[in-house]
Amino acid sequence: MFPHIKRRKTRTIFVGNVSIGGDSPIRVQSMTNTDTRNVKATIKQIQKLYKVGCEIIRVAIPDEKAIISLKEIVKESPIPVIGDLHFLTSLGEKAVNTGISGIRINPGTFKNRKNLERLVKICKERGTCIRIGINAGSLEKEILKKYQKPTPEAMVESALNWIEYIVEKYDYQNLKVSLKSSNWWDTVRAYELFSEKSDFPLHLGVTEAGGIIPGTIKNTMAISYLLLKGIGDTLRVSLTADPVEEVYVAYEILKNLGLRSLHPDVIACPMCGRCEIDLMRLYKKVEKWAKKVKANLKLAVMGCVVNGPGEAKHVDLGITGGKGVGIIFRKGKIIKKVPENELLSAFFKEIKKFLKEHPERYIN
Amino acid sequence: MFPHIKRRKTRTIFVGNVSIGGDSPIRVQSMTNTDTRNVKATIKQIQKLYKVGCEIIRVAIPDEKAIISLKEIVKESPIPVIGDLHFLTSLGEKAVNTGISGIRINPGTFKNRKNLERLVKICKERGTCIRIGINAGSLEKEILKKYQKPTPEAMVESALNWIEYIVEKYDYQNLKVSLKSSNWWDTVRAYELFSEKSDFPLHLGVTEAGGIIPGTIKNTMAISYLLLKGIGDTLRVSLTADPVEEVYVAYEILKNLGLRSLHPDVIACPMCGRCEIDLMRLYKKVEKWAKKVKANLKLAVMGCVVNGPGEAKHVDLGITGGKGVGIIFRKGKIIKKVPENELLSAFFKEIKKFLKEHPERYIN
Repeated sequence: MFPHIKRRKTRTIFVGNVSIGGDSPIRVQSMTNTDTRNVKATIKQIQKLYKVGCEIIRVAIPDEKAIISLKEIVKESPIPVIGDLHFLTSLGEKAVNTGISGIRINPGTFKNRKNLERLVKICKERGTCIRIGINAGSLEKEILKKYQKPTPEAMVESALNWIEYIVEKYDYQNLKVSLKSSNWWDTVRAYELFSEKSDFPLHLGVTEAGGIIPGTIKNTMAISYLLLKGIGDTLRVSLTADPVEEVYVAYEILKNLGLRSLHPDVIACPMCGRCEIDLMRLYKKVEKWAKKVKANLKLAVMGCVVNGPGEAKHVDLGITGGKGVGIIFRKGKIIKKVPENELLSAFFKEIKKFLKEHPERYIN
Repeated sequence: MFPHIKRRKTRTIFVGNVSIGGDSPIRVQSMTNTDTRNVKATIKQIQKLYKVGCEIIRVAIPDEKAIISLKEIVKESPIPVIGDLHFLTSLGEKAVNTGISGIRINPGTFKNRKNLERLVKICKERGTCIRIGINAGSLEKEILKKYQKPTPEAMVESALNWIEYIVEKYDYQNLKVSLKSSNWWDTVRAYELFSEKSDFPLHLGVTEAGGIIPGTIKNTMAISYLLLKGIGDTLRVSLTADPVEEVYVAYEILKNLGLRSLHPDVIACPMCGRCEIDLMRLYKKVEKWAKKVKANLKLAVMGCVVNGPGEAKHVDLGITGGKGVGIIFRKGKIIKKVPENELLSAFFKEIKKFLKEHPERYIN
């Protein structure tokens, strides 16, 4: 039913009160796309993301003004906040002092060693997690010179150099690493290579993956490939879309791997010329409903009465129908026939009944 | 850049004039969801699917009336038509006589041996391809009894029995096989197992995968896993959605594996608090445009001027901008600055210019 996955042994680190690595569940992250300086909009988005299961949130630090906002955001956020430093490395110390739980640095854009020194010192003092966020598109010049191209080997060397520097010089180890490329296969190769050489936890992701469909495909390919090999301790599905979708896609990947479950699984016919019920409409409503429920359930929306209950006998509850009649089945057995226009409400009633009998199926 | 894939050696078969297996490209299929008895609507959908790259189309045969329509559909379809027989096995011979290029049978619902005999004979006479379409949800009773559950092993045994029967008794070999389950991992295991035991070409797919996002995730996981192992000769991404999306997702998977390319690859920032341009709108327009173009191109839509051209220096052409200014870059070098509202038209002009210089990039 599910693949057997043997997770790679990593050390446990913390972003605020959220553990990453070791035996911790694989953590789902996202990033706000609001203007960080707009506290209200940013907090609203974080709240929304928190509700759909986001466990850690990253926000960009575009300038000094954002530092003031960051303080407010940290105070109001229900989940640990990570600041994304990128170019303005001089703001690192100030950013950490806002009380963020983690900071992401990009070695390729971190040129000032004094700023780095101050940053690592304050992180160590406050226990702030550092993500060494390697990006194939902005590798350090020296590394790029050596390898000519941003190869997976080049990315890994950059990450290992920085770990060594921070661990040996500052004796600080609350670190995680990402090795992102917009090419999913380079991404995969970099993570594989790194995981042979270090046990620091890994933050998975493909950068600049694109919009909801092509981006979901690239992310799924890379992330499921790595997780199947036991590699990955936290992940962000990066999409040019509402970040709520990033969280949803992340959990769908984890669910299909048997690693974490959040929402019911809804199987559905692809519709064919045999279908005599408004399958698409029914499916969309069931899927929308399922996205709001946190429970371990398997549901089915099937297109024909002949095929439906039989082909979906392994699900907890399902519907099908045709010619105005709606049918509800439970573990393959038909339990109710109703007019088609009453099918959905009757179905949701049956699901609630099922969950009352199986409260262990709820996920909190 | 791309994974190295060593394709499994399979025999070459034909669905009409389209070769499958051997050294043939991995073929993209879809299935109509119109009422087959509505010839006009069905042909319209097939035309639409053909335009987006669908190479073989399957239509359901819900009843005897559909046989009459099928004849018309076959005549007007620009691509080979496969009839999906499923329950009404008595219609098999008539269906093949409409001139379809392939027929899909489900052993689990094919109980009448006389009908089978007539079907295989007429297929052999006309060279019609037979797909032995195993479905975990409707396995033969005898097999299910032996294995208790629709395991991958049970699915493979059913397929091998049927191959043996058709090949040995009728000496007919224009066959392909599918082994679909709504559980992606069972699907994967069944195909892996089968490919160790037989060299008949394989039609990949996950059945009842669900709507556009969850379905894309399940299909991508299963199909990319198998293709990476060299398994798979043709595929259908099954989605509860417009079948046009099935074809699009199929090519996206193939493109990311370096197996086939159809549309330009568009990378794009996930948008963050640093973004000062209407990235989402620009991306959506570029993606929509790219879906209509058949060319091997790499494009980028980047969120910030500082990061954009550098991080996307490997693409052919890209755009970025901020504060009302739009920027076009080619191979990492800025080649044009225009007002933001003229950016898209200037970008498309530059792409056309690029394609004029590189006509070899077009895919026909």
